[in-house]
Amino acid sequence: MTSEHAVRELAEALLASPTVRLGDDVEPAWRDTLASWAHANGLELTRDAATLAITTRPAHAVGASWVHSPFAGVEHLAPALADQVLLTRTTGTMPHRIAEYVLAWVFAERWQTARYVADSATATWDPSDPPAPRARDGAVVIGTGAMGRAIARTLAVVGHRVTGLSRSGHPDDAFDVVLPLAEMHRTPALDGPGADVLVLALPHTPQTAGLITPELLRAFDGVHLLNIGRGSAIRTDTLLDAIATGHVRHATLDVTEEEPLGASSPLWRRPEITVTPHVSGLTLSSDVVAGLDAALKAIRAGVRPASAVALDRGY
Amino acid sequence: MTSEHAVRELAEALLASPTVRLGDDVEPAWRDTLASWAHANGLELTRDAATLAITTRPAHAVGASWVHSPFAGVEHLAPALADQVLLTRTTGTMPHRIAEYVLAWVFAERWQTARYVADSATATWDPSDPPAPRARDGAVVIGTGAMGRAIARTLAVVGHRVTGLSRSGHPDDAFDVVLPLAEMHRTPALDGPGADVLVLALPHTPQTAGLITPELLRAFDGVHLLNIGRGSAIRTDTLLDAIATGHVRHATLDVTEEEPLGASSPLWRRPEITVTPHVSGLTLSSDVVAGLDAALKAIRAGVRPASAVALDRGY
Repeated sequence: MTSEHAVRELAEALLASPTVRLGDDVEPAWRDTLASWAHANGLELTRDAATLAITTRPAHAVGASWVHSPFAGVEHLAPALADQVLLTRTTGTMPHRIAEYVLAWVFAERWQTARYVADSATATWDPSDPPAPRARDGAVVIGTGAMGRAIARTLAVVGHRVTGLSRSGHPDDAFDVVLPLAEMHRTPALDGPGADVLVLALPHTPQTAGLITPELLRAFDGVHLLNIGRGSAIRTDTLLDAIATGHVRHATLDVTEEEPLGASSPLWRRPEITVTPHVSGLTLSSDVVAGLDAALKAIRAGVRPASAVALDRGY
Repeated sequence: MTSEHAVRELAEALLASPTVRLGDDVEPAWRDTLASWAHANGLELTRDAATLAITTRPAHAVGASWVHSPFAGVEHLAPALADQVLLTRTTGTMPHRIAEYVLAWVFAERWQTARYVADSATATWDPSDPPAPRARDGAVVIGTGAMGRAIARTLAVVGHRVTGLSRSGHPDDAFDVVLPLAEMHRTPALDGPGADVLVLALPHTPQTAGLITPELLRAFDGVHLLNIGRGSAIRTDTLLDAIATGHVRHATLDVTEEEPLGASSPLWRRPEITVTPHVSGLTLSSDVVAGLDAALKAIRAGVRPASAVALDRGY
């Protein structure tokens, strides 16, 4: 839903039926906070179909004119909603936290924290092969949304030259340069060999599944790949091959093709791969409330909320 | 040596006897680089006493009017030199690298990298108790020299409010506020309970040995203490007591009272303490050359080099 007319219709619907339904999937710890928010804003909680549904599940969104996702990922919701429904989502402080996660793991690898924690636990004083100064300044971030931009700014602050890759290739001041994804295989401006860090910050959409191909990774020379978007962006065997051939020297994965990752996955137990259990983008109940507040204010003012999702693109 | 007159005398001495001695302690890998630098600047290498001595050892500095330390720490040199000798030291890119070390370990602890590396090695997907958002914004840096300033700027960039403690308490724009060390026990402005990070960035001098007292640490409430200056600043038993009482929740020590740290030290094998083998401030031969270049240019221009050490203070 994009038109101002539709937003005004939604505002009227909220006046006529100021009702909110919390999906069964909403975390128990958040239910009181969200109930207080609804009450403070003149909205009535109901277990039935309501004007606003707060949920991640299409089944709980039936009948709603406005659906708010308590999380950033809306891959299950967006394709299931009718065109006239407004879908908003929570980002909150998450881009900032995800950027910190990226920096934490970039430095953990660069400063060999795993080695020194192990040495410290075994009373081993070994000053040989200390962490070397970073040899290459480049960083590439694929995906230039709120998360990609926060990551780019953080990497720039610690001295990286940051290239962004996006669908449009439009310039963005969080990046030194932005290139269009469609041209990423042929542009010398990508400078894969000059990149020390490669961050995947992509939502899951039909277009992003498998987007990170062996061909793309061959442009890099021993890069540290971090995935904080969705696991579908890179196939497990594509990643394992790129590590075997040295195009990727280390991978830090907060998202994987299957989650939870099964114990038999070849991604486990490898020193070149660190898997974290989808903890980079922790959403707080205060983030959800802030997102709902901003969206409700916009709707009541007849303006499309900034957190509205384009249903056809899925983000 | 501080007076302009003395610097001019040194410049004349370098003209009259353009000689350099490399101490036996200078790393073999650096000797060719330093010999090239001397040659390029019209200075002749000698094994005997020379106008300029490049060394960390008083024995190799005998007879020199100018002594350059290839490292930042000059605790053995400074007390051994006569007043009229110019002592310069190498800092180079080290403050920047030490600031990165601090950030790497602050984030490693906050983002539980040791836990997730261990989980990854044992195929454990455990999303419980994920890294929580930082609850406190404060950081305290004791020592406001080049390293303390670089650390302060880096911590500020990631959202910390940084208090510096120095001998003088003079304001410094790298810090939100600077307090004098002598008042650190009684000023409410220190706000120990609001500090998440406490960094020791002190040189070794008679005044700094044991400066971090149990009384000072009692001002903090579960702080992450990092020491990147000199191990003498905090006694091992003071640190262990502060961990036992919870004033310090974690300690990351790149320097210790004895180095290498003996296998029987109680600092090893504790999950609340990470010891790294003095690797934060790796000095590169290019840093030494840059330091020598800058000092030589200043001397030839009759100006006291910025890297000159006040022999009475030792830094």
